[in-house]
Amino acid sequence: MEHTVRSFDADLRNLSRRVAEMGSLAQAQVSGALRALERRDAALARQIITADNQIDAMQREIEESAVQMIARRQPLAIDLRQIVGALRIAGYLERVADLSKNIAKRTTVLTGEFPIGDVMPRIQLLGQKVLAQLDEVLRSLEGRDGATALEVWRKDEEIDALNNSLSRDLFAYMTENPRSVVFCTHLLFCAKNLERMGDHATNIAERVYYIVEGQEISGERPKEDLRTA
Amino acid sequence: MEHTVRSFDADLRNLSRRVAEMGSLAQAQVSGALRALERRDAALARQIITADNQIDAMQREIEESAVQMIARRQPLAIDLRQIVGALRIAGYLERVADLSKNIAKRTTVLTGEFPIGDVMPRIQLLGQKVLAQLDEVLRSLEGRDGATALEVWRKDEEIDALNNSLSRDLFAYMTENPRSVVFCTHLLFCAKNLERMGDHATNIAERVYYIVEGQEISGERPKEDLRTA
Repeated sequence: MEHTVRSFDADLRNLSRRVAEMGSLAQAQVSGALRALERRDAALARQIITADNQIDAMQREIEESAVQMIARRQPLAIDLRQIVGALRIAGYLERVADLSKNIAKRTTVLTGEFPIGDVMPRIQLLGQKVLAQLDEVLRSLEGRDGATALEVWRKDEEIDALNNSLSRDLFAYMTENPRSVVFCTHLLFCAKNLERMGDHATNIAERVYYIVEGQEISGERPKEDLRTA
Repeated sequence: MEHTVRSFDADLRNLSRRVAEMGSLAQAQVSGALRALERRDAALARQIITADNQIDAMQREIEESAVQMIARRQPLAIDLRQIVGALRIAGYLERVADLSKNIAKRTTVLTGEFPIGDVMPRIQLLGQKVLAQLDEVLRSLEGRDGATALEVWRKDEEIDALNNSLSRDLFAYMTENPRSVVFCTHLLFCAKNLERMGDHATNIAERVYYIVEGQEISGERPKEDLRTA
């Protein structure tokens, strides 16, 4: 009996470790996609696209382990919460990686000069904020830290605000410079993808909070503003 | 023992029924969002946005039942495949509904006249194709029909092609009519959302095939073309 318990804990630690690994890989995909976009580096972008398969495989593995654990161990409610939480978080990480792949795909087709002074740096800034949110939420998961998760959840508004002002400026620029329409639209989609990653950081924060506290975060999520995006 | 088996089958049927219900609701959200966009009906769009909570709740319920079934019944591999498949399909349906909500959100902020002759009808056409794919893949799930699932999987290319040509024309129009940039960009995002729904119909087709055949669909997925989108 003691052996069973010990090895269940080992399974649980193993599952957490794999989710953490998947998180690191997802972060690497985000920062790689941002670097590729910044440098207009199509070769790097193609590496990011290829590496996405690895993340998908990790998600499938995590899903399989989680399901096997549930089937074999008949875990208690509190452990079930952790296992199902890991499943969900792996799902969100897969989506983050998928959005990175999408930015990388757009990077491979961006051509021509892009003249706007500060738009590219502002996309990078948005990306850095998203990376910081991901980093913090993954640390909150590792440390089973509900307070930090709650902080991440609250800070998503900043990302939405950055995306909104960036979109507004891109629209204004496109209107003035119609020949930049295709390029700017790719950037609009890239910014939108980053904003979606921020949403997934928020989703993960909700799961971490639930795992740690056993209840949902109360209150409404900050709302997204689509008037300009 | 016989009683246990019978009630496991009842659980499984119940799970399938709820996934089918979730599928119908997701389809209703897609067609509601399309109708709201077509008529620029902000009130209907707001209904779609509100109804999205219901779909999220259904996904949580399906997840909970699936996990409980796995924990209590310790199912055989073949049954596990069905239960995990239901979990995954519910996840894709949630994403389809989420994309409908996104179209509805954009509909609430679309203002002014939109002059392009055939762009709006072509978005509707794209939407109808997506609805047809969803309908077919949900029927393939209900009928445990791998051949139909495979057909859905193959037809996703048509949706990608429609989205590509629509995007190209929207870009051209925006370049000629810079004042339509904001409106056209909303439409680009709406078209992209529909194309993503098509991808999820493909994801569901892969799961149905796996549930029925016990193996993955072989061959590469048709690739998406981002040169103009």
